[in-house]
Amino acid sequence: MPLPQEFHDIAKRVNNWGRWGDDDEIGTLNLITHQVVREAAAAIRSGRRIPLALPLRHDGVQTGVIPGRVNPLHTMTAVNQEIFGPGTVATSDDVATMGLQAATHWDGLAHVSHSGRLYNNRPADSVTAHGGATRLGIEKATPVASRGVLLDVARVHGTERLPGGHAVTPEDLDAAEELAGTAVRSGDVVLVRTGQLRHYLDGDRQAYAFPSPGLSLRTPEWFRARDVAAVANDTLTFEIFPPEIEDLWMPVHALHLVEMGMPQGQNWNLEELSTACAEEGRYAFFLSAMAEPFVGGTGAPVAPVAIL
Amino acid sequence: MPLPQEFHDIAKRVNNWGRWGDDDEIGTLNLITHQVVREAAAAIRSGRRIPLALPLRHDGVQTGVIPGRVNPLHTMTAVNQEIFGPGTVATSDDVATMGLQAATHWDGLAHVSHSGRLYNNRPADSVTAHGGATRLGIEKATPVASRGVLLDVARVHGTERLPGGHAVTPEDLDAAEELAGTAVRSGDVVLVRTGQLRHYLDGDRQAYAFPSPGLSLRTPEWFRARDVAAVANDTLTFEIFPPEIEDLWMPVHALHLVEMGMPQGQNWNLEELSTACAEEGRYAFFLSAMAEPFVGGTGAPVAPVAIL
Amino acid sequence: MPLPQEFHDIAKRVNNWGRWGDDDEIGTLNLITHQVVREAAAAIRSGRRIPLALPLRHDGVQTGVIPGRVNPLHTMTAVNQEIFGPGTVATSDDVATMGLQAATHWDGLAHVSHSGRLYNNRPADSVTAHGGATRLGIEKATPVASRGVLLDVARVHGTERLPGGHAVTPEDLDAAEELAGTAVRSGDVVLVRTGQLRHYLDGDRQAYAFPSPGLSLRTPEWFRARDVAAVANDTLTFEIFPPEIEDLWMPVHALHLVEMGMPQGQNWNLEELSTACAEEGRYAFFLSAMAEPFVGGTGAPVAPVAIL
Amino acid sequence: MPLPQEFHDIAKRVNNWGRWGDDDEIGTLNLITHQVVREAAAAIRSGRRIPLALPLRHDGVQTGVIPGRVNPLHTMTAVNQEIFGPGTVATSDDVATMGLQAATHWDGLAHVSHSGRLYNNRPADSVTAHGGATRLGIEKATPVASRGVLLDVARVHGTERLPGGHAVTPEDLDAAEELAGTAVRSGDVVLVRTGQLRHYLDGDRQAYAFPSPGLSLRTPEWFRARDVAAVANDTLTFEIFPPEIEDLWMPVHALHLVEMGMPQGQNWNLEELSTACAEEGRYAFFLSAMAEPFVGGTGAPVAPVAIL
Repeated sequence: MPLPQEFHDIAKRVNNWGRWGDDDEIGTLNLITHQVVREAAAAIRSGRRIPLALPLRHDGVQTGVIPGRVNPLHTMTAVNQEIFGPGTVATSDDVATMGLQAATHWDGLAHVSHSGRLYNNRPADSVTAHGGATRLGIEKATPVASRGVLLDVARVHGTERLPGGHAVTPEDLDAAEELAGTAVRSGDVVLVRTGQLRHYLDGDRQAYAFPSPGLSLRTPEWFRARDVAAVANDTLTFEIFPPEIEDLWMPVHALHLVEMGMPQGQNWNLEELSTACAEEGRYAFFLSAMAEPFVGGTGAPVAPVAIL
Repeated sequence: MPLPQEFHDIAKRVNNWGRWGDDDEIGTLNLITHQVVREAAAAIRSGRRIPLALPLRHDGVQTGVIPGRVNPLHTMTAVNQEIFGPGTVATSDDVATMGLQAATHWDGLAHVSHSGRLYNNRPADSVTAHGGATRLGIEKATPVASRGVLLDVARVHGTERLPGGHAVTPEDLDAAEELAGTAVRSGDVVLVRTGQLRHYLDGDRQAYAFPSPGLSLRTPEWFRARDVAAVANDTLTFEIFPPEIEDLWMPVHALHLVEMGMPQGQNWNLEELSTACAEEGRYAFFLSAMAEPFVGGTGAPVAPVAIL
Repeated sequence: MPLPQEFHDIAKRVNNWGRWGDDDEIGTLNLITHQVVREAAAAIRSGRRIPLALPLRHDGVQTGVIPGRVNPLHTMTAVNQEIFGPGTVATSDDVATMGLQAATHWDGLAHVSHSGRLYNNRPADSVTAHGGATRLGIEKATPVASRGVLLDVARVHGTERLPGGHAVTPEDLDAAEELAGTAVRSGDVVLVRTGQLRHYLDGDRQAYAFPSPGLSLRTPEWFRARDVAAVANDTLTFEIFPPEIEDLWMPVHALHLVEMGMPQGQNWNLEELSTACAEEGRYAFFLSAMAEPFVGGTGAPVAPVAIL
Repeated sequence: MPLPQEFHDIAKRVNNWGRWGDDDEIGTLNLITHQVVREAAAAIRSGRRIPLALPLRHDGVQTGVIPGRVNPLHTMTAVNQEIFGPGTVATSDDVATMGLQAATHWDGLAHVSHSGRLYNNRPADSVTAHGGATRLGIEKATPVASRGVLLDVARVHGTERLPGGHAVTPEDLDAAEELAGTAVRSGDVVLVRTGQLRHYLDGDRQAYAFPSPGLSLRTPEWFRARDVAAVANDTLTFEIFPPEIEDLWMPVHALHLVEMGMPQGQNWNLEELSTACAEEGRYAFFLSAMAEPFVGGTGAPVAPVAIL
C-alpha cells in the first residue's frame, strides 16, 4: 500500500532536508538558538516547577500490544548491603529494563522511516540491530531547553478530555494559541493537551491507548509555518488513531520525524501544568527536557520540567 | 566495625531530621524555593546549553566490580518494521537494561543507610526487594531546577585532573568559590570538578574507578553551612577513595544521604562546562537535572543541562 | 494470620529436615540414586521424545499480576552482522530478560519460606537481594534425570480439563496411578495432568491463571509416602487456587519446598505426553529436566523432555 | 573479502540442503530417529549423571568484547515477601537478563548466514530485529536426546589443555574415537574436549577467550561422513581462533550451521565428564540437552546432562 499523493504533497511543503547542511543530524533542534534560550529565561516568573513525566513503573501505559515496548521493570540488586563488613554503611542498588519509548519520551529522528529514508535523506538501513541508530541517534540531539508553550486544546473545548475520535486541527491550535495569549514562535517547544492521559490516570490503560484523539495530518504545516523546535502531547499514539485517512498509518510521525526532522514527545503528563497555567493566566514557561542520551537510541525517556 | 566517634560528631552537626517535618521525604530539595528558582533564572545570560550526562553505552564507566550495576545495554526490538504492511511508514524501537546508578545519576535518599536508619529516621528495611524504596524513593524528589555553581577545584589547582589521592577539602571549596566569583547560597546545586572523568574519556576506566580524588569527610559541614540543595561531581566514588580514615567507608555518602537528606550526583561530565565557565568568566548558571522518576528507585539516571 | 494447626500437623508428618544431613541443600533429589537412574533407562522403549516446555515468548502465561515475573522478552543485538568485514560470514545474536518462574520452570528450595525458615532449618534471610539464594540455590540441584510417571487425572475423570475448583486429591492420584499401570516408587518424578493449560493454549491466559485446579493440601503426604523426587504439573499455581482452607495460602508450596525439600514444577505442557502415553498404553518414561543453573536462583526455567 | 574457493569446495561436499525436504528447519536433528534413541538408552549403565552446564553468573565467560552477549544478570524481585499478609507463607522471586549465546548454549541454525543465505536456502533476512529468527528458530529444534560420545582430544594428547594454537584435526578425532572404543555413528552427538575451559575455571577468562584451540576447517567433513546430529565443545569460539586461513573467519560455523544444518554447542564443561569416562573406561553415554525454546532464538542456553 504506497503512501497516497496527499501525503507526498504535504511532505514537500514541510520538508527540511538540507536546510541545516547535508550532515545535519538534529533537525529543528537547530532552531533553539542562544537568543531563543535567553528569551525563554524571561518566561520564568513565579518560580514554580512542574514535572511532566509519568512515574516509571511496571504498570505503566503500555498494554503489551507492541512486543518489545515493555513497561519499566525495576528490580533491586542490593538492599542495605554492608559491602565493607557488618556495621558499616549499607547501600541499596537497582537495575531497570524498559522500552525506550515505553513511558514519557522523545521520539528521535531515527524512530521512523518511509520509502527507505530517514530525515535528511539518510538511508533507513543506517539503523541496525547491533548498532541501533548509527545516524540520527538520540544521543546526538542537543539539549531541549527552550520556551515551552502549552496549547490546551481540551480547555479550549471546555472539556477535561477530548473524545477518542477527535483530530486536533490547525483551527484547534489557533484557538489554543489565542487562549495562551502568546504567539508561538521559532524555537518554541509546543505541548498540546488533549486530556487523553486522564484515562490512564483513572486506571484504564486500554481506553488510553485506543481510540485516541491526537494531531491531525493537517497540523505539521502549522508547526512548520511557525518553525517550532519540537512538539509533545499527552497521548500514546501522538496522532489521531485510528487515522483520518484509511490505510494511511502514522503520517504525522513520518512528516515530523522524516520530513521536518522534528522530535516529538508522547505520554507527557500535562494535567498539573494545565491547572497551573490557568491559575497563573499564562501558558508560556521555560521547558527543560533533555532525552537520556542512549547511544544509537531511536528515542529515549525524558523527565521534562516546566518552570513557570 | 562500628562507625567511629568522629563520624557521629559530624553527623550530629549536619543532621536535618525533622527539619521539614517528620513525614518529609525530599530533604534539602525543600531548599529550592520559588524565589530561589526565580533568582536562578537570572543566571541565564548567554543562552548556551551544556549537557552534563555521559552517553549511555555498553562500554560505560562501570568495570563490573559492582555486580548489578551494569552499564547500559541497548538492544533493538524493531528495525524499520512496516507494522501496517509493505510500503507503509516503518518504525524502529529499542529497549535498554541498566543499573540506575551505572552512569550519570543522582543517588536518592534511600540509596544508603547506616545503623539501620535512612534519612529522617526511616527504618532501613523500608527498602525491600519487591518494592525498592517504599519510602524516600527517587520518584518523590521534586525536580532539581535551580542555580548551579561550578566549583572547579582542578582549575584552582592549575591542573587538568587532581591526583587519585586528593581529598577535596573545605579549603579547596573556598578557593573554588572565590574563583567562581559568587557566594554559594541556600538552594544552590554545587558541581565539584576534580577532572577525574578525563581518565574515562581517555579510555582508562580502571584508572577512573580507583584510586579516586573526591570529597573529604570534612566537606559535608561546608555544604550544610551554606544549605545547598544538592552536590554532584565527576567521579565514580563521589568521595575520596580509598577513604581518609581506615575502615571508615563511604562516610560522605552517609552524611549527605542519611543525615542531611541531600541528593548527590556522580559521573557527571563537567569538562565542557569548565571550559565554558572559564570562557565566560562566570561559574553560576541555571541547572536543570530532574532524575528519571523510577518508582521505588534508590537512585536514577539524569541528563543534566547547564544553561549559561 | 498464623498458619493453622492442621498445617503444622501435616508439616510434622512430611518433614525431611536432617534426613540427608544438616548440610544438605538438595532434599528429595537425593532419592535419585544411580540405581534409580539405571532402572529409569528401561522405561525407554519406543524412542519417542516429547518436549514439555512451553515456547518462551513475550505473550507467555504471565498476566502481569506478579510484578517482576515477566514473560520472556527476546531482543536481537545483531542481525546478520558481518563483524569481520563485508562479504564475510554474518552472525545474529540475541538477549533475553525473563522471570525465572515465568514459564515452564522448577521452583527451587529457596523459593518459599515460612515462619522464617527454609528447608533444612536454613534461615529465610539467607536469601538476599544481592546474592539471591545463598543457600539452597537452584544451581546446587543435581540434574533431574529419572523415571517419570504421568498421573493423568484429567483422563481419569474423562475430561480434557478439570474444572477450576477441582482439588486434586490422594484418591485422584490413586486412580491415576492405577490407570498408569505402574506403582510410583522412590526417586520417581511425578507429572500430574489437570488439563488446565488448555486454557492458555486456547488463548485465554486469564482463565488459565484463575481459578485453577491443582494439588490438594492432602497430597504432600501421598508424595512423601512414596518418596518421589519431584512433582510437576500443568498449572500456574500448582496447588488448588483459591485455596481449600480460607486464608491458608500456598500450603502445598510450603510443605513441598520447606518441609520436604522437594522441587516442584509449574506450567509444564503435558498435552502431547498425555496423548502419547494413551497411545502407547503406558505412563512411565525416562524424564530429563535439569534446571538452568542460575547461581542464587530460587527457581529456574527448564526444558524437560520425556523419552518413551 | 569474498569467501575463498577452498571454503566453497568443502561447502559443496558437506551440504545438506533439500535432504530432508525444502521446508525442513531442523537439519541434522532429523538423524535422531526413534531407533537411535532406543539404542542410546543402552548406553546408560552406571546411572551416573553429569551436568555439563556452567553455572549462570554475572562473572561468566563473556569478556564484554561482543556488546550484547552479556553474562547472566540475576536480580531479585521479591525476597521472602509475605504477599498474602504477615505470618503467611513467604516467596522469593527472580528475574534474569542474559545473552542467549553467553553461557553454555546451542547455536541454532539461524545464528549464522553467508552469501545472504541460511540453512536450506532460507534468505538471511528472514532474521529480523522484531521477530528474531522467523525461520529456523531454536524453538523449532526437536529435543536433543541421543547417544553422546566424548572425543577427548586433550587426553589423547596427554595434556590437561591443548595449547591456544591447536587446530583439532580429523586425525585428532580419529585418535579420540579410538580411545573412546566406539565408532561414532549416525544420530550421535559428539562432544569434543580441548581442555580450554580450564582457563576460565582457573579464573582467567581472557586466556579462555583468545587464542583458542578449536575445530579445524577440515573437521566438518569428518562429522558429515558419520552423519552426527550435533557437535559441542569446551571453548568460547568453537573453532580454532584466530583462524587457520587468514581472513577466513568462522568457516566452521558457516559449514555446520548454513551448509549442513547442524547445531553446535559452546562453553560446555567437559571436565567432570572426562574424568568419569576415563574412570568407567567408556566414552559413550546418553545425552539429554534440549535448548530453552526461545521463540525466534538464534541460539539458546542449555543445561546438558550426560547419563553414564
